[in-house]
Amino acid sequence: MTARKIGVTELVLRDAHQSLMATRMAMEDMVDACEDLDKAGFWSVECWGGATFDACIRFLNEDPWKRLRTFRELMPNSRLQMLLRGQNLLGYRHYEDMVVEKFVEKSAENGMDVFRVFDALNDPRNMARAMAAVKSVGKHAQGTICYTVSPVHTVDGYIRLAGQLLDMGAESIALKDMAALLQPQPAFDIVKGIKDTYGDIQINVHCHSTTGVTLVSLMKAIEAGADVVDTAISSMSLGPGHNPTESLVAMLEGTDYTTDLDMERLLRIRDHFAGVRPKYKEFESATLVDTDIFSSQIPGGMLSNMESQLKAQGAGDRIREVMEEVPRVKADAGHPPLVTPSSQIVGTQAVFNVLMGRYKVMTGEFADLMLGYYGECLGERNEEVVALAKAQTKKEAITVRPADLLKPEWGELEAAAAKLEGFDGSEEDVLTNAMFPGVAPKFFQTRAEGPKSVAKTPAQMAAEKADKATAAHQGIT
Amino acid sequence: MTARKIGVTELVLRDAHQSLMATRMAMEDMVDACEDLDKAGFWSVECWGGATFDACIRFLNEDPWKRLRTFRELMPNSRLQMLLRGQNLLGYRHYEDMVVEKFVEKSAENGMDVFRVFDALNDPRNMARAMAAVKSVGKHAQGTICYTVSPVHTVDGYIRLAGQLLDMGAESIALKDMAALLQPQPAFDIVKGIKDTYGDIQINVHCHSTTGVTLVSLMKAIEAGADVVDTAISSMSLGPGHNPTESLVAMLEGTDYTTDLDMERLLRIRDHFAGVRPKYKEFESATLVDTDIFSSQIPGGMLSNMESQLKAQGAGDRIREVMEEVPRVKADAGHPPLVTPSSQIVGTQAVFNVLMGRYKVMTGEFADLMLGYYGECLGERNEEVVALAKAQTKKEAITVRPADLLKPEWGELEAAAAKLEGFDGSEEDVLTNAMFPGVAPKFFQTRAEGPKSVAKTPAQMAAEKADKATAAHQGIT
Ligand SMILES: [Co+2]
Ligand SMILES: [Co+2]
Repeated sequence: MTARKIGVTELVLRDAHQSLMATRMAMEDMVDACEDLDKAGFWSVECWGGATFDACIRFLNEDPWKRLRTFRELMPNSRLQMLLRGQNLLGYRHYEDMVVEKFVEKSAENGMDVFRVFDALNDPRNMARAMAAVKSVGKHAQGTICYTVSPVHTVDGYIRLAGQLLDMGAESIALKDMAALLQPQPAFDIVKGIKDTYGDIQINVHCHSTTGVTLVSLMKAIEAGADVVDTAISSMSLGPGHNPTESLVAMLEGTDYTTDLDMERLLRIRDHFAGVRPKYKEFESATLVDTDIFSSQIPGGMLSNMESQLKAQGAGDRIREVMEEVPRVKADAGHPPLVTPSSQIVGTQAVFNVLMGRYKVMTGEFADLMLGYYGECLGERNEEVVALAKAQTKKEAITVRPADLLKPEWGELEAAAAKLEGFDGSEEDVLTNAMFPGVAPKFFQTRAEGPKSVAKTPAQMAAEKADKATAAHQGIT
Repeated sequence: MTARKIGVTELVLRDAHQSLMATRMAMEDMVDACEDLDKAGFWSVECWGGATFDACIRFLNEDPWKRLRTFRELMPNSRLQMLLRGQNLLGYRHYEDMVVEKFVEKSAENGMDVFRVFDALNDPRNMARAMAAVKSVGKHAQGTICYTVSPVHTVDGYIRLAGQLLDMGAESIALKDMAALLQPQPAFDIVKGIKDTYGDIQINVHCHSTTGVTLVSLMKAIEAGADVVDTAISSMSLGPGHNPTESLVAMLEGTDYTTDLDMERLLRIRDHFAGVRPKYKEFESATLVDTDIFSSQIPGGMLSNMESQLKAQGAGDRIREVMEEVPRVKADAGHPPLVTPSSQIVGTQAVFNVLMGRYKVMTGEFADLMLGYYGECLGERNEEVVALAKAQTKKEAITVRPADLLKPEWGELEAAAAKLEGFDGSEEDVLTNAMFPGVAPKFFQTRAEGPKSVAKTPAQMAAEKADKATAAHQGIT
């Protein structure tokens, strides 16, 4: 019997450095690995998304569209893959449909092949237009299930959601586990359920490694029929990142599955990034494994956000109360998955509830969430809280797709960009400004200076360490 | 259907700090966790072995027998477990049988319950006497398979070895994977093979996490019928250590297996050691995941040993040659598993071969290995190299059990100990000096001063960092 080939999506150029070093890796630290990445035999190379786009223009003075074109040139044999937040594109609000179409068209033109389309609330209506746009330019539209755990989320529910995504034309389904909550048994059950229900459609599984258990989940997903899994080269893996690519290869050796990856190239990629990673040490968190989320259901990033909010109010000792409030707020909102932006919205409201009384003060975002402006959640909303949201905001609840309320805006966006110093006249620039209006204008002004790196040289690191430690030492003695 | 209960051996008190921080953890950093360890529901708590014994008397001025008695007192409900190097006991040579019996008797008397008996070469004759001794004092004798990968090591061979251990009276079988080489499929095949061949005898599986893949191996071993698996609490896990205990619990949730561990106690144990670990940072290595061993077959510790040996000879650039020489030397010796002491013996000979020509100079230890003085390996030895060993050492090859050549030595050992300043007259002290003759005399002299900790306080750490960094800074500027 021949082993079944399992595809691998290598994450090092996008999610790995996003998760491990706040998306700070400079293009100059990636280019030398691209030939090996291109020829190692990956199903796809993920290399673009909201945070990479944001970090490029905010911290690295680098044009993200140019980054994409460079990847395209350096990896001619690879499927390039991106993460697209449905109707939000790479930004933080809903965009009118024509903007969505423009963005997809331009991304494809600049070299993108696979669009993993997701919505924080798993509302298919927020993914539909982006998926249709991807299909109309002839690229790969991947519909996404954001995995979470709640009283209303069930294996059957995820299987139904996969069906809705397939009805919308998804060429493949991604099971996306951003909080490393996906345990082996549900991983098996969901993948098997989708295959049993809809036939042999391609399933990609994306897990983080935070809880230390998800390589087993990938194994079970593969046994259940998963076709492609996501990993990151070992020198850029683990902790809040992903399972190591070489460990996946080792995991499947001798089984009925194989990756057929070129191990020599993997080792070169590994060695390359082993040299890069220390230069970004200041952006790394210390967490190696964190299983708290299984009991708290609160992702680590959300927890630290709430802690800083409390500390800023001199109420750092009330984190336990807030942690107990989060599940109530989440339930009131209809059990949204806790992922950007719903994690921030629910977390901040939980902090407000503890500090000022339950829903005495509601954030504008939380009111919008309660009133349907982000889309529909799987659970029922608490009608009392909906009423409070209406009263506090004087807005009505909606049931239509949020973007249906938007008027055509492409013309306005073009006009806004045209006024900016350094605008290069391209539709790419219009889109950049549309998605990051607070950052793009400054970037356009400084773009001509070229990319800069925030990596530290070994000498810089040693010198800074010395200065800091000397200061600390003087404080002690 | 009720889930099958999987036992867990918690490693934090022995192998975890041995693997992560050179066995340096002081007793004072463990006692506060003992109540939770005792009541969390573990199958056993591993807490004693050669390196802990050695570190106690060499670095911590602590009596290892007293440590054992303290554990016994603090964990009255638990099986205490130790790792015992067969006829070597906890030392580095073979001991005569009566010494083996004395050691086992005293260990049991002081509180030990489960003796995991192993031999670096997997030679059952080197385990037989220790196993018999354990059985004769009514304790649990666990026979061990050291897992390695070589042209002569096969699943069937491991199954046969299990049979030999059972014939010797093993109450359970441990599959011990010190180098994290055990991939999921062989883990499944070996466990299933043993169960199919010998019936439902207890199988314990011990894996390190170095290669990032072995939690999956534990899952497959469990599916094949394994009864107990070894893990370490998450705050003392991963890298060259072990898979996290909480991740194992999460792994089995919803499956046909359960650990029934008390999660609240686990979290308290975790938090306790999360506070302890940073104090021993200077003893930690930086490696998070290392998959090199799958291609090189050379454990990380062995590789760094050879590198230092080469550097000491001004030949640091010849490590590639040495790495290519290792498999040849290993084959010549009949494919011993590369674990202490065979890893050092093979590694040093490989270095000698590269620097001085193949077997031009043979170490005494390597000659002994070739002549059978460590026991039998699975493969055939290279007869030409055996002849060279005879010629260089003027010794004959042996085929008997090495300890059969030893004369009764207990009386001599007693006499030797009696001469030492600070000897307390106990058989425990005789054994301590017998196993660590180079360290025990000094320890007996200073024992009265009581245990000392090599942990750093936060203030100490900051101060030292400042001194070091200042020095580095001055070197740079
Ligand atoms: Co991700
Ligand atoms: Co071990």
